[in-house]
Amino acid sequence: MEKATYKSSGVDLDIYAESMARLPGIVKKTFTPNVLRLDGGFAGLFRLNGAAKAYKDPVLVSCTDGVGTKLKLAFMTGRHSTVGIDLVAMSVNDAICCGATPIFFLDYAAMPKDDPALLEQIVSGIADGCAQAGCALIGGETAILADLYAPGEYDLAGFCVGAVEREDVIDGKAVRPGDRLIGIASSGFHSNGYSLIRKAVFEMAALGVDDVVPELAGKTVGELLLEPTKIYVKPVLKLLERFGANSVVRAIAHITGGGLVENLLRVLPDNCAASFDADAIAPTPLFNWVQRLGNIDDDEMRRVFNMGIGLVLAVREDAAGDVAAFLNELGEEARVIGQVRAK
Amino acid sequence: MEKATYKSSGVDLDIYAESMARLPGIVKKTFTPNVLRLDGGFAGLFRLNGAAKAYKDPVLVSCTDGVGTKLKLAFMTGRHSTVGIDLVAMSVNDAICCGATPIFFLDYAAMPKDDPALLEQIVSGIADGCAQAGCALIGGETAILADLYAPGEYDLAGFCVGAVEREDVIDGKAVRPGDRLIGIASSGFHSNGYSLIRKAVFEMAALGVDDVVPELAGKTVGELLLEPTKIYVKPVLKLLERFGANSVVRAIAHITGGGLVENLLRVLPDNCAASFDADAIAPTPLFNWVQRLGNIDDDEMRRVFNMGIGLVLAVREDAAGDVAAFLNELGEEARVIGQVRAK
Repeated sequence: MEKATYKSSGVDLDIYAESMARLPGIVKKTFTPNVLRLDGGFAGLFRLNGAAKAYKDPVLVSCTDGVGTKLKLAFMTGRHSTVGIDLVAMSVNDAICCGATPIFFLDYAAMPKDDPALLEQIVSGIADGCAQAGCALIGGETAILADLYAPGEYDLAGFCVGAVEREDVIDGKAVRPGDRLIGIASSGFHSNGYSLIRKAVFEMAALGVDDVVPELAGKTVGELLLEPTKIYVKPVLKLLERFGANSVVRAIAHITGGGLVENLLRVLPDNCAASFDADAIAPTPLFNWVQRLGNIDDDEMRRVFNMGIGLVLAVREDAAGDVAAFLNELGEEARVIGQVRAK
Repeated sequence: MEKATYKSSGVDLDIYAESMARLPGIVKKTFTPNVLRLDGGFAGLFRLNGAAKAYKDPVLVSCTDGVGTKLKLAFMTGRHSTVGIDLVAMSVNDAICCGATPIFFLDYAAMPKDDPALLEQIVSGIADGCAQAGCALIGGETAILADLYAPGEYDLAGFCVGAVEREDVIDGKAVRPGDRLIGIASSGFHSNGYSLIRKAVFEMAALGVDDVVPELAGKTVGELLLEPTKIYVKPVLKLLERFGANSVVRAIAHITGGGLVENLLRVLPDNCAASFDADAIAPTPLFNWVQRLGNIDDDEMRRVFNMGIGLVLAVREDAAGDVAAFLNELGEEARVIGQVRAK
């Protein structure tokens, strides 16, 4: 009689061990002094206080997100080393909206069979993202789910914890009518709207990932659509250190699904609305390109995409010029795009 | 010309909003006093110190895991209200191995299309698990990935953060030869080995989820295989409070994939090994049933399954009887199953 084994049921513990052996070297570069080593243990350990900082009344800020169907671009191109940056970005950019410093990150990767080389590419990207965000990659899970994922596909989920002194939590309560809205440029689509993008680009326009788009600097479709999400952690933390949370920087919105208006309204007080300067929020050529390919309505575009602005800050009116200049000095493309008004 | 919309590409933001509207009522029951409310915000906020506890030198302990192909049992039976308990259990049972109190949890659920009723069942289970573990469900992401998951299927990932005073971290360094090993009964397969289980039960034995198994109290295959993972948080925290971390309770191992020996060795110091009393670790009838159906080797069984013991504690020799008695008084099935020896 046949003997069932874990291997014959699709799970090879030896290849799994090989996969796991490759990871410590990759993740170590993200370790900060507060990571406590516990080899072989069941969890990631992080000492909250340390030489650099001792919190009086710490608030932990936690976020989770995935990459969405941007993953399909990785499958189509065979390039798996940047979706991990997107994974980290989607969570850490949420965490900084509360004024928190991202301190550690964990990932969940699910795939149909063990593939050490693929996992190494994915985790390298996650580690790159964590390094950009200054947070430690202290844990993760690789799930082998033979029957749940198609060959060559996978899903990723990320989880970030940040910390902030309670009195420095940015919750939007400090926002006042007259505050200026400063937009920081996105690096492209980030990780939202890819079902719509893929319908426009691959179904309706029938383009392939290797096709060149002359109007967009001659980049390929694959390059344009895989451009990693910008990570705003370091400039925002520098900004908060320089100008202060709530006194000057009064609300921060990460522009994801829902677009500029919906995401900004999430962080404004109920008695406030926003108006935008029409010329300051004109869509970039990248967004025009997808809109044309998919014949997408203007409203739908604004509801789904960041349209070129990935993060919006509400700042005290008299400091708006200084804040924008400071961000530009840090290499960001930042400008006043509107203002808060009474509702 | 056709107009591409988010809806026509598979993402319906209105149904998504309906899904999201159902969740706050479900998750609220898990909230502890330390959860800070931030409606509409980008993150979950948790105040680490509070009336009940102020940490001097807090260590944050973080874990992530999924449910594995136990999810397939939910798909086969249409019962989606308990896999969330498994999701929480897999992470919080890891967190307590370090002596940490699980404080909050986040989930990631990915499915091919929005399904408010399904999501409500899943999240209800996650909230039940969080309530059992005493931790707050303060965030989550529902990802709609039309092309990645088959109709009726989904994947779940969970993230738990626990906290522990630095001097009370259990890292196994206090273990000494002679320490007794106490095993606490599992509730069944927990969430490991389901690829092998499904091969044995559904492929080789060709059983269906509604088939009755007379030798196992007349339960159905579906009931036996969906039994939720036991959550050990509350008894272990009571035990640590009563007997002390490291002084008496010196190592804790959550028995998952890899089985009893491999998981225990993860937490023992390098100079220690373990021996088990043969009669104390005899497999329960549930495991014998699957072994027979799949004609699975003894070694393979021990390498894949918990075999009836879900958590093992290494405790100081002279306290072993008291620890086991204390756990039994709390309603756990606990007994001495072996001892630590010098290697």
